[in-house]
Amino acid sequence: MKLSGIIGYPVTPFSHDNKSVDLGKLGQVIDILLEAKVGAIAALGSAGEAAYLSESEWKQVAEYTVKYVNGKVPVVIGVAELTTAQAINYTRYAYEIGASMIMLSPFSYYKLSEQEIYSHYEAVSNATPLPIMIYNNPATCGVDMSPEFMLKMVDGIQNASMIKESSGDIQRMHKIYKLSNGKVPFFNGCNHMALEALNAGASGWCTAAPCLIGDRPKQLFEAVKEGKSEQAKALFYQQYEFLEFIVTSGLAAAVKSGLELQGNGIGDPRKPLQPLGRAERKRLQGLLTEFV
Amino acid sequence: MKLSGIIGYPVTPFSHDNKSVDLGKLGQVIDILLEAKVGAIAALGSAGEAAYLSESEWKQVAEYTVKYVNGKVPVVIGVAELTTAQAINYTRYAYEIGASMIMLSPFSYYKLSEQEIYSHYEAVSNATPLPIMIYNNPATCGVDMSPEFMLKMVDGIQNASMIKESSGDIQRMHKIYKLSNGKVPFFNGCNHMALEALNAGASGWCTAAPCLIGDRPKQLFEAVKEGKSEQAKALFYQQYEFLEFIVTSGLAAAVKSGLELQGNGIGDPRKPLQPLGRAERKRLQGLLTEFV
Amino acid sequence: MKLSGIIGYPVTPFSHDNKSVDLGKLGQVIDILLEAKVGAIAALGSAGEAAYLSESEWKQVAEYTVKYVNGKVPVVIGVAELTTAQAINYTRYAYEIGASMIMLSPFSYYKLSEQEIYSHYEAVSNATPLPIMIYNNPATCGVDMSPEFMLKMVDGIQNASMIKESSGDIQRMHKIYKLSNGKVPFFNGCNHMALEALNAGASGWCTAAPCLIGDRPKQLFEAVKEGKSEQAKALFYQQYEFLEFIVTSGLAAAVKSGLELQGNGIGDPRKPLQPLGRAERKRLQGLLTEFV
Amino acid sequence: MKLSGIIGYPVTPFSHDNKSVDLGKLGQVIDILLEAKVGAIAALGSAGEAAYLSESEWKQVAEYTVKYVNGKVPVVIGVAELTTAQAINYTRYAYEIGASMIMLSPFSYYKLSEQEIYSHYEAVSNATPLPIMIYNNPATCGVDMSPEFMLKMVDGIQNASMIKESSGDIQRMHKIYKLSNGKVPFFNGCNHMALEALNAGASGWCTAAPCLIGDRPKQLFEAVKEGKSEQAKALFYQQYEFLEFIVTSGLAAAVKSGLELQGNGIGDPRKPLQPLGRAERKRLQGLLTEFV
Repeated sequence: MKLSGIIGYPVTPFSHDNKSVDLGKLGQVIDILLEAKVGAIAALGSAGEAAYLSESEWKQVAEYTVKYVNGKVPVVIGVAELTTAQAINYTRYAYEIGASMIMLSPFSYYKLSEQEIYSHYEAVSNATPLPIMIYNNPATCGVDMSPEFMLKMVDGIQNASMIKESSGDIQRMHKIYKLSNGKVPFFNGCNHMALEALNAGASGWCTAAPCLIGDRPKQLFEAVKEGKSEQAKALFYQQYEFLEFIVTSGLAAAVKSGLELQGNGIGDPRKPLQPLGRAERKRLQGLLTEFV
Repeated sequence: MKLSGIIGYPVTPFSHDNKSVDLGKLGQVIDILLEAKVGAIAALGSAGEAAYLSESEWKQVAEYTVKYVNGKVPVVIGVAELTTAQAINYTRYAYEIGASMIMLSPFSYYKLSEQEIYSHYEAVSNATPLPIMIYNNPATCGVDMSPEFMLKMVDGIQNASMIKESSGDIQRMHKIYKLSNGKVPFFNGCNHMALEALNAGASGWCTAAPCLIGDRPKQLFEAVKEGKSEQAKALFYQQYEFLEFIVTSGLAAAVKSGLELQGNGIGDPRKPLQPLGRAERKRLQGLLTEFV
Repeated sequence: MKLSGIIGYPVTPFSHDNKSVDLGKLGQVIDILLEAKVGAIAALGSAGEAAYLSESEWKQVAEYTVKYVNGKVPVVIGVAELTTAQAINYTRYAYEIGASMIMLSPFSYYKLSEQEIYSHYEAVSNATPLPIMIYNNPATCGVDMSPEFMLKMVDGIQNASMIKESSGDIQRMHKIYKLSNGKVPFFNGCNHMALEALNAGASGWCTAAPCLIGDRPKQLFEAVKEGKSEQAKALFYQQYEFLEFIVTSGLAAAVKSGLELQGNGIGDPRKPLQPLGRAERKRLQGLLTEFV
Repeated sequence: MKLSGIIGYPVTPFSHDNKSVDLGKLGQVIDILLEAKVGAIAALGSAGEAAYLSESEWKQVAEYTVKYVNGKVPVVIGVAELTTAQAINYTRYAYEIGASMIMLSPFSYYKLSEQEIYSHYEAVSNATPLPIMIYNNPATCGVDMSPEFMLKMVDGIQNASMIKESSGDIQRMHKIYKLSNGKVPFFNGCNHMALEALNAGASGWCTAAPCLIGDRPKQLFEAVKEGKSEQAKALFYQQYEFLEFIVTSGLAAAVKSGLELQGNGIGDPRKPLQPLGRAERKRLQGLLTEFV
């Protein structure tokens, strides 16, 4: 499977009482992403509040997404579990329902050693034939994997074949590119670093931004790939403050508040997460007018 | 309730296949702690691998601990859940089974704002009359609460009455003491900072060390309280390398390997956590000979 | 004055006993930079070991450089002094000898407040009409200036008109560009971030790399400006490991060892700085073969 | 020489135009310290703005201090120079004028490797027979030396025999004590960590606080040494906010403003350093009333 372009991240709509998932509204979010010309849909990532779902909710979202997307684009399923057993359980489920691949990150309570992380990835890889995107996001997952270590896992672990880098340090991408001779595909997971990531050789950009600003991320991706550097710069700076805002104010909260501002309200994030406050909401409204 | 002295943390024994909790062996661990003269037992903390248990396992451990301790000392139950709903669920359970109090930390995937944390603590406080120890451990929980903010919660939230500080920065304790005029009890959660925490006015020391070194922590606590500063210093430095070792090599893994070295084997931590490697094991064995 | 392209940094050659500056050899280094098609020469920067020179040595180097360059390209003089009085003294000297501008950084022992930094820049600005490039390099200077603060100085201080950013965080450049509407010229001071800095709108790249790899930096600059993004990427990755190496092993030491490896030996850095060790030297030799 | 107790740091008074040192007023500051029962005087430390003095000013201050103290207590001279040659020059001067020892820190522009630091200390040690206190202060000097490395220098370098630790991390002191079996004397250089440093075995406390609060630091030192732990705690918390304040607002500026508030005005710090602003001044005034 050759993944490229914009990997779109749906948020997960909840019922009014915050107690269950609203699958109908999830379909609406997926439609928005497909209209934004994403190259793949990644369910159950950070933006999807996967960490805040019960096991049955998680499985509902995974299954519904695969069915709803119905092969139009590949479906990536995020797996970020504290125990290896649960990560295997979820990966097997993703395989059974026909997902295209998983994006696997080492969510942690205790800091994990490289040996512990390696064994975790290996055990998950051995559980199904699904391709694995190694996902490094120290800010949410509590462990930081170096480019060298992730490339070692790509080398040694059967299904580990791609990397998503969200540390926010562009040097990591340079290392991945240089150390792998440009052979290991890597994806940008830090929204407001998209311009440099794509210029540095990233195969794509993992983002929830298309939930709110349509195909602008796709336009930026294409401008870079076509060598239209002035246009790419202009597109990036047009999106820059918006991208920084959704990252720093919390992806799920920001996207959900943005959808409401756009008349596509799908409810609040799950507690303890809170929707944007009044001032942030107003700031977001201002940022969104840039794209009307 | 007046909590003081050593708060002992049992590890959670698993069955050989790592798939279920071994309650019988948990009783043995609790016995070791009681013999070490702890002033309270704190189940389901970091050392107890609470983050790696299923809901039913978590409840088994909580219930068994309360029953087994049987009022000899207070039982504190650790609550560190990603959603507010689950934290309330667990806290209610702790109340139903007769626990003495809870130790509440804001485990996070998304970084939480102070407003989100405050609402989380408030909602949990409103769910039961149990006293709440606010627990700050940025290394495991992913959010860092300032002394000022924790004292604000003690002020404004009904049951929040104590603080456990595990950031490793002694200045936090000075702030808590000074800003509260010595009125808000605080506990040391950073093993190799015990000497200065107690000298700075900590009411007690939360530690899994008594699982392996008996009543030495209690001796250190008493030496400080009795103003025997030379003896306190000697006791601390005797324990120092051991305390630093169990923190830096992972509490659950270190304590479980140590119990095995002492002939009280209760199995391995749960994957992805791994038992100590050969070299660390040897190091631990050397450190333990200090206390024979 | 419109500065653009590659700003080349000469190293400062010392006599064999390390006790005086060797001006003749300084001329050779300047020739190498001019052959590398630099758009300006920046004397007395980090690479020039300005911090390690006596006042009379500093003045010799400044005067010699201006005379030797003789108007072929602009000459920038680095000023990084602990006291405001000495910074003014050096700036006045730079003006008297006919330098084109100064690059001013707030070298510090005590951390400086923004008010202290602002007054420092203001006092220096009032001393001469020379344009000032604000230089942020927290790793060497011990204070970190935010984009917002530096733009405030550009706004409020007469001669402050440009920024050199060396923090290594690409987001700083995005901020400068966005907050100033692309109006305030900024320069890249972090060698192994050159590709993204130029793509993000940097006017130029401040670097000692041309001392060793000729006009490759200039080629990279032009490829980006002409929108040849694939070629720019290739040129960048060709230079990447070399650029990272000279930064992480110490610019002055690395460039001086490199010149010796290329048969242009000009002596060692000044103690406590040491020349590269045997292993690093070998690594550098390997990296340089890439460019023969 | 056996150094112990409070090592008092005089600030350096300047003339009204900030252009020269006022030696007469320096004598007044030294008198204040001697009345505060310090065990030694340390001239030309951070508090003394040594980094901001010209060579001739530096020598004046050193010579005047030794003469004025006149053997009543030992005089330590701080040496923190960028070049090894200048550090040797200053150390020789300290020896010639009869100083008791030097306190040597590796002030840096380029980060220094351990090998570079080692050679720097070794060269200075070989220049005179003066005992050397190794001084670690990463916040001002830009390099951080580990306990292990400093003990290696104590082992291998003739005159290096003591350590002053100012990183603010109490664990460093535990390491020094434990790794040297309590044999290598270490001094606290972090004012608001004095209580725990002394309890952890520090031989003394290096501080400018006695310039403003007389013999309270000495009282705290003695309470700890005599095992009066409750009294030590009370004394520490009485001084705590004051100690934290002078550290966070800049030692030289804070002490000079404090002296002025107490009617002992000796002028401002040297630019770019500024005296305390109005609000900070008021805060300091409030803190000082605690000690009247």
